[in-house]
Amino acid sequence: MIASGVFVGIYTTEYAHALRDRNGHTFKGELERIGYLRDSRVGEHPLAAYFELHIEQGPILDHEGITIGVATGAQGQRWYEVNAKGTDAHAGSTPMPNRRDVMLACAQATLGVNRIALGHAPAGMGTVGLVDVRPNSRNVIPGHVFFTVDLRHPDGATLLQMHREFESMIVRVAEQTRTELTSECVLDLKPTRFNENCVRLVREAAQRLGYRHRDIVSGPGHDAVNVSSVTPTAMVFMPCVDGISHNELEEAREEELAAGANVLMHAILECDRTSCGAQ
Amino acid sequence: MIASGVFVGIYTTEYAHALRDRNGHTFKGELERIGYLRDSRVGEHPLAAYFELHIEQGPILDHEGITIGVATGAQGQRWYEVNAKGTDAHAGSTPMPNRRDVMLACAQATLGVNRIALGHAPAGMGTVGLVDVRPNSRNVIPGHVFFTVDLRHPDGATLLQMHREFESMIVRVAEQTRTELTSECVLDLKPTRFNENCVRLVREAAQRLGYRHRDIVSGPGHDAVNVSSVTPTAMVFMPCVDGISHNELEEAREEELAAGANVLMHAILECDRTSCGAQ
Repeated sequence: MIASGVFVGIYTTEYAHALRDRNGHTFKGELERIGYLRDSRVGEHPLAAYFELHIEQGPILDHEGITIGVATGAQGQRWYEVNAKGTDAHAGSTPMPNRRDVMLACAQATLGVNRIALGHAPAGMGTVGLVDVRPNSRNVIPGHVFFTVDLRHPDGATLLQMHREFESMIVRVAEQTRTELTSECVLDLKPTRFNENCVRLVREAAQRLGYRHRDIVSGPGHDAVNVSSVTPTAMVFMPCVDGISHNELEEAREEELAAGANVLMHAILECDRTSCGAQ
Repeated sequence: MIASGVFVGIYTTEYAHALRDRNGHTFKGELERIGYLRDSRVGEHPLAAYFELHIEQGPILDHEGITIGVATGAQGQRWYEVNAKGTDAHAGSTPMPNRRDVMLACAQATLGVNRIALGHAPAGMGTVGLVDVRPNSRNVIPGHVFFTVDLRHPDGATLLQMHREFESMIVRVAEQTRTELTSECVLDLKPTRFNENCVRLVREAAQRLGYRHRDIVSGPGHDAVNVSSVTPTAMVFMPCVDGISHNELEEAREEELAAGANVLMHAILECDRTSCGAQ
């Protein structure tokens, strides 16, 4: 996602190079280490169109027994980082009303994120995925928690509404727990609609090849989401078992992977034959 | 607490020696490293009585402007370790009803612990102090959380009632979040009453020296709690600023530390003079 973001001008090369993981390794250093640091200029590679093949990373195709997902676009996505500050204190001698317990604040916010997502069912999603508690000791009321929030919805206006609900929820939790909560939105991806002609080529290829298929909105972000801002783009999805992804149990069936590759090839050949990207 | 526990026979020497911290260092190895590993036999040191001086580690004395706390005993305390298992899954493509989100389970349990403590106000206490989330990534629904729970109350029957409420709360949360929660009680300290004569000597010393004092129940566990099972025991508490403890801001005023030391000395001298420990 970072590399395609640089390619289309969302990020500068310098920004991407300077990114660090939690162990302090930079993106540039790691590119160099694996031999991928080159000096070709961003954007000098022309694109007529862009097609991307991916497992769904969700359960819809697998549970409905469908072989090909025709991705019509990707949902919008907002990421937040929340810092909660209270007071480290002894768990055995600090009366409940005197506490400024940030784990309690984090718990209330986690339930709040869940409520916001369910309030915009079925498409709304909300996740607290990363939680870092300090000092993280069993008999100390935590005085600092850092946690992340991921909100998604395919409709831009609804995602903005979820954003507003999130911001007021955080203020409410801080008041109720007498803690300081600061939240920062570190990613704001608008919903994406892929190119109608490219999407049609994917749908027709699946049809022609006789695979069960359905339209679907991508849950995750993908390189295609970035690249769609500079060239006609579509995606082909294949099922993965129980939708499990980002997990060592991630699994896809060979025949469905082959079906996806076939649809990808036929869509690209047809795109090339009809110069669909030029429309 | 471990060393006094071995002294009075709660733990075996072997058990204590084999304990490891989260970095893998053993208790025995660390004793050796600092030159404290000796071979005198446990219990061969006779005790006539035991007096311990400590900051309160809570806000009561400081907020009430009182110099000496006469500890009449210590509250009961139960520690739990909870393992929550769900399914790691992609935060952008796993519909809310399909999730087995253990961070949601941990959040519900944290609010549950808080409710149990408040339901036994003012003395009940409940804390989730340590939380370890896996894989701890912002766009992955966590599939595993380990967290600790600390419940305390000065009354044994009430603490047992809190324990029962905790156990059924954990079952309820597991059902509601479709996750597996297993909790283990790893510490069960009964409430302690210190020796009446020793407590009286502390109270009389504070009185005689002209310090403002009050009776108080110790929130934290202390070596005195262990030792009280083998010899007459009491404790002298001094205020600490805002009750803050287990925190770098922990602070106590010189004149109050001196007062505590004076009360300790006078109580011990009077105990020796009257052979109070023999009663």
